[in-house]
Amino acid sequence: MPDPQIEQPTDVIVKITTANICGSDLHMYEGRTDMEKGRILGHENMGEVIEVGPNVTQVNVGDMVCMPFNVACGHCANCEKGLTGFCLTMNPGTAGAAYGFAGMGPYSGGQAEYMRVPNADFNCLVLPEDAKEKENDYVMLSDIFPTGYHATELANVQPGDSVVIYGAGPVGLMAAHSASIKGASKIMVVDNQKDRLKLAEEMGAIAIDFSKAPAVDQVLDLTKGVGADKGCECVGYQCCDKHGIEHSNITMNELVQAVKATGSIGVVGVFVPKDPKSKDKLQKIGHMDFDFGQFWMKGQSIATGQANVKAYNRQLCTLISAGKANPAAIISHELSLDQAPEAYKHFDNKDKGWTKVILKPGKTKGKKSARNKA
Amino acid sequence: MPDPQIEQPTDVIVKITTANICGSDLHMYEGRTDMEKGRILGHENMGEVIEVGPNVTQVNVGDMVCMPFNVACGHCANCEKGLTGFCLTMNPGTAGAAYGFAGMGPYSGGQAEYMRVPNADFNCLVLPEDAKEKENDYVMLSDIFPTGYHATELANVQPGDSVVIYGAGPVGLMAAHSASIKGASKIMVVDNQKDRLKLAEEMGAIAIDFSKAPAVDQVLDLTKGVGADKGCECVGYQCCDKHGIEHSNITMNELVQAVKATGSIGVVGVFVPKDPKSKDKLQKIGHMDFDFGQFWMKGQSIATGQANVKAYNRQLCTLISAGKANPAAIISHELSLDQAPEAYKHFDNKDKGWTKVILKPGKTKGKKSARNKA
Amino acid sequence: MPDPQIEQPTDVIVKITTANICGSDLHMYEGRTDMEKGRILGHENMGEVIEVGPNVTQVNVGDMVCMPFNVACGHCANCEKGLTGFCLTMNPGTAGAAYGFAGMGPYSGGQAEYMRVPNADFNCLVLPEDAKEKENDYVMLSDIFPTGYHATELANVQPGDSVVIYGAGPVGLMAAHSASIKGASKIMVVDNQKDRLKLAEEMGAIAIDFSKAPAVDQVLDLTKGVGADKGCECVGYQCCDKHGIEHSNITMNELVQAVKATGSIGVVGVFVPKDPKSKDKLQKIGHMDFDFGQFWMKGQSIATGQANVKAYNRQLCTLISAGKANPAAIISHELSLDQAPEAYKHFDNKDKGWTKVILKPGKTKGKKSARNKA
Amino acid sequence: MPDPQIEQPTDVIVKITTANICGSDLHMYEGRTDMEKGRILGHENMGEVIEVGPNVTQVNVGDMVCMPFNVACGHCANCEKGLTGFCLTMNPGTAGAAYGFAGMGPYSGGQAEYMRVPNADFNCLVLPEDAKEKENDYVMLSDIFPTGYHATELANVQPGDSVVIYGAGPVGLMAAHSASIKGASKIMVVDNQKDRLKLAEEMGAIAIDFSKAPAVDQVLDLTKGVGADKGCECVGYQCCDKHGIEHSNITMNELVQAVKATGSIGVVGVFVPKDPKSKDKLQKIGHMDFDFGQFWMKGQSIATGQANVKAYNRQLCTLISAGKANPAAIISHELSLDQAPEAYKHFDNKDKGWTKVILKPGKTKGKKSARNKA
Repeated sequence: MPDPQIEQPTDVIVKITTANICGSDLHMYEGRTDMEKGRILGHENMGEVIEVGPNVTQVNVGDMVCMPFNVACGHCANCEKGLTGFCLTMNPGTAGAAYGFAGMGPYSGGQAEYMRVPNADFNCLVLPEDAKEKENDYVMLSDIFPTGYHATELANVQPGDSVVIYGAGPVGLMAAHSASIKGASKIMVVDNQKDRLKLAEEMGAIAIDFSKAPAVDQVLDLTKGVGADKGCECVGYQCCDKHGIEHSNITMNELVQAVKATGSIGVVGVFVPKDPKSKDKLQKIGHMDFDFGQFWMKGQSIATGQANVKAYNRQLCTLISAGKANPAAIISHELSLDQAPEAYKHFDNKDKGWTKVILKPGKTKGKKSARNKA
Repeated sequence: MPDPQIEQPTDVIVKITTANICGSDLHMYEGRTDMEKGRILGHENMGEVIEVGPNVTQVNVGDMVCMPFNVACGHCANCEKGLTGFCLTMNPGTAGAAYGFAGMGPYSGGQAEYMRVPNADFNCLVLPEDAKEKENDYVMLSDIFPTGYHATELANVQPGDSVVIYGAGPVGLMAAHSASIKGASKIMVVDNQKDRLKLAEEMGAIAIDFSKAPAVDQVLDLTKGVGADKGCECVGYQCCDKHGIEHSNITMNELVQAVKATGSIGVVGVFVPKDPKSKDKLQKIGHMDFDFGQFWMKGQSIATGQANVKAYNRQLCTLISAGKANPAAIISHELSLDQAPEAYKHFDNKDKGWTKVILKPGKTKGKKSARNKA
Repeated sequence: MPDPQIEQPTDVIVKITTANICGSDLHMYEGRTDMEKGRILGHENMGEVIEVGPNVTQVNVGDMVCMPFNVACGHCANCEKGLTGFCLTMNPGTAGAAYGFAGMGPYSGGQAEYMRVPNADFNCLVLPEDAKEKENDYVMLSDIFPTGYHATELANVQPGDSVVIYGAGPVGLMAAHSASIKGASKIMVVDNQKDRLKLAEEMGAIAIDFSKAPAVDQVLDLTKGVGADKGCECVGYQCCDKHGIEHSNITMNELVQAVKATGSIGVVGVFVPKDPKSKDKLQKIGHMDFDFGQFWMKGQSIATGQANVKAYNRQLCTLISAGKANPAAIISHELSLDQAPEAYKHFDNKDKGWTKVILKPGKTKGKKSARNKA
Repeated sequence: MPDPQIEQPTDVIVKITTANICGSDLHMYEGRTDMEKGRILGHENMGEVIEVGPNVTQVNVGDMVCMPFNVACGHCANCEKGLTGFCLTMNPGTAGAAYGFAGMGPYSGGQAEYMRVPNADFNCLVLPEDAKEKENDYVMLSDIFPTGYHATELANVQPGDSVVIYGAGPVGLMAAHSASIKGASKIMVVDNQKDRLKLAEEMGAIAIDFSKAPAVDQVLDLTKGVGADKGCECVGYQCCDKHGIEHSNITMNELVQAVKATGSIGVVGVFVPKDPKSKDKLQKIGHMDFDFGQFWMKGQSIATGQANVKAYNRQLCTLISAGKANPAAIISHELSLDQAPEAYKHFDNKDKGWTKVILKPGKTKGKKSARNKA
């Protein structure tokens, strides 16, 4: 692939220093969602600015920057309200644009040496002086930390709340971290993978292993039968039961039971409008057998959608810089760029211990466990 | 039935002067939901206080009062936050208490001469001096005006918004009235009953007759293909298609299409956790074939549940008193108490022109059309 | 003055079709605040786009556009949160930038034939098809309609509220119009100029003439002694008592008395950090003898500052287009550009009937009263 | 004083196990505000219920309860919105009622063996099972923990914010604790008492000693010249400069400078509407020489007033129970009831080390330092 060039006077070129692999990259890797051939993947990126277009005013060569996965224009009716995940102009007719993502516009990703950033004044977060020292934390500002935080915003988590989070993958762990930052009193994380649940516990959450007993029962036991104040869905449509069988409605229907009446549920796990390769008749057309009657009777609410990263990245950056957030704690592997295929394989197999992989395009080959380093 | 007595020192006895018939009374009338025999129906009530318990401090004999349909304690964790529809003590273990309602506690309704009001200081709204003059407006504060308003609050309707409302029954019309009060720029009301759509137009809304063309198409045409900013569901599980066949998911799935990405949907139409008499397999257990994939991809939100009437009734009362709200405009029939069975029959048959019936317990028999009077 | 040119690829040039005179222009006219010589005044502007820079993507030649008085970058920490009145980059070190305004950056105003708009995709509101037909309404979106609306947002005006507004100048009248749109139940406007109070009444407000009786007494009489739910300050530091003597603290101290305990007050009237030409010792240094003790004891709140026009202009535009807002109702005079000096003189003298003047740069000389036309 | 009796069927009698001395008790002790002779002081109380009126439904004999200092009815227009500090019926005509407080109604305080609690279902918080074990934490729910939290709510402190807090007394320290719970990134506490600043540091805050350098300069240095995102006033009208001279406007005018443009300021320090014993001419009538011009130009907001304790006490109770809040950390002295006069003397002298005194009515005499115990 040729290196990217400045195309518009508002572009910058970033030399990628860290690029994460995200669970949603796997949807394309697996062919579950479509991706054009030859497109560079990677929407979780940070790096150093090496060239700036003539009309860029706030980003300078040498700045360390982290890019929200959303590519946004900054001036449409949605962007001006902070809804950058639903930018109306960068990928018209759909729900926003992203780097290296099927169906989200012609923007090359960052699993490469260089990346072009359009509307750079708007789409770059210039990082503070400790950018290189805390690089593995700051790169999380591109997606999963704001996405996990978004789950807690959508669920309206308040100080003192009890929260149940479905999914101990990277996003679920970041939702747990966010709930902790916000002063939740009790954080319950539901999964069946021991290593991920252990990470959840390290973040101050209570592990709910649904392979041992029904998750809803465990949550009700921990909340005097009332249910959690708030709930977060961080799994998405490929949710599996304890036998490994996919049922896209497990998490939502359990959340309706596990969250108290009047409680709210934030959904950042991805659900898709069509899924022809699913075996489930409803899921094929993006539908779900949903317990709407119970949901309504309990007066609950659901808020959904991809994160508007810019709505949160400055505040979360401040927390990292102040030492009050450390999202890098969940990184399991730090690899060179040419080890990416290997990582995709392990990640796709859900191999034990492969929680979150970050790629270092500038580094030479050689597998290192970030976790062991820490 | 014997007249009610003061049972607790915080009770009052109200001589009912107006009691409405509500669509949800029909659920019990039809036997779709269970009701104990001999219970007095009627949760939309106003009247004159004729006796006060010794510990009542703010309500006096002779006061004209309107009672929220919710019976609430005023001191539980939900009531103290204004969530009186989910009071934890007046009907423990379920979603709140109400007068004259199946499954909502042992409180007799107001389709009678007298009614006991528990925790009267909390559960009576003392009306202003023009209470008798505007009685037919004020009685609407017991349920449908706050419930329609609640739909617009759940949907977060803001000045300038376009709003699509499913259902031109009394609650849908009140949602339209509320959206208008809140400064919505475009209010679209979906139904197929001509007389109800005409009322919607009289309230400043655009009528969307789904028997003529698909409602979603009409809404998209009126919103440049984008969809409405906000949506309200005011129909509930007994929603029928244009052939009169019940499908509980029509309104919700159409709202997902008719509302724009990032829009929010308020649901006050009743959905039930079980409905054994339904012919639909999912609906029997209160479930719904819901278009969750589209809903998520559009980043929409849904908020649900019965109205917490006390959260709104003082402000809406002020609007009536100031002449800026006139909910009585939707009343079609004003009857004496002994004409109630007749009214139920017409209402249940969805007879043309029977929009909203109010009963006057103190009046002698004789059918009068409120509409003709106005 | 030479005509403006495209300076940046993100600029557009607008042929001004309407430019208003604003009360704050008078501060410069009077020399009360400083203005560089030769600068073109005029921050309330609309017109037709006649040239677009190569990097402008959403604004086209021929578009009718209205410009918020705030000149903003769209990408700083404040702009991205919608706080465009406090843009950190277009006029660094101060509180935002504006066209043709002392101390608010080097941006020429629109009381001219042409005006350059920087960051045009962000700073132009493209108007709907009826732009020319309702031009006198749409031009109000540049400042006073959003500013009046901002007063009601800062005061958190809700449906059903009673509101007291100090000042029946253009902004106060727009605050009254906004409160009405939002469903306020009672709107009380305080002034002593008969013609302005008459306009307030035409907008549905109650006129409070403080030359007849103390305004606070009148408000308390109208609110059963409790005070208004919310208050708006639309006068600013040049407030005068009934004898015409300036006291910058009259409106604020009266609002503390006229608004109920727990009520909130929005302040959009301009207060300045120094005012050396004032005769009052405290006011010289921008200070005020403020009744903080009463304010605290009543648990009130105050929110202040210039409007972030972009936060409101789309929604208010929709209301104009839908015929639910008509801010042009307050225009008293429609003049040609060369009549501007005459208008400034009348306006500065507070001549009766000179409420709001709009200038039509493209029109030939000839005074017309807009009010008489309507 | 005779022991209190059940007077209304909704009362309970509580045997006081802990009662705090509050800074505002000193206003009465000093005679700065008036107090009737013979009234029992003490509005920060917890204890065991020993008798319940016949109409109390949710509080039982043997329950450990903590009482908000606000005495509230639970049913007036303010209480039903959660504004229990402004209850309209328990002390009509003023800003709410409290136990043992001058001008706040006829309710005896808890610096005694027993106390009567009116409207007990509403005014008692029933504590969890660890009530006795964490008694010194839970008693803080009566006033200073919710009051400190209220400061952060009024200032709208959000995760990631920097916050400057004026005052390191008990309330200021609780504001710092609350800001930390809410995820503030930087908490700066301003005072000149070394022992209190040390406590602030122990709570994770940065100490700003204004006796060393102007506080505003220190805050600006710590915030890159921008100012803190949010500010809290926890001192009140008796604020002194570094020479010990009272100036009621120091904290507010410094907050305007120390907080950034668009920032908000929460004021829980007490300001009074008249203060005839003050030497300052404005302060005598409750007024203040306030820097309104700067405040307006920066677009800041101020929210004020006593805390509505019930709005927060349940959530804060949950945090104590979960071990995520420990307000007892600020207690300096734990004394028997007969040592109260001694404590008042030390507290009034601002003797070093006397931060917060709690009284144990049931305990025998004997001074113990709570801090040393911990």
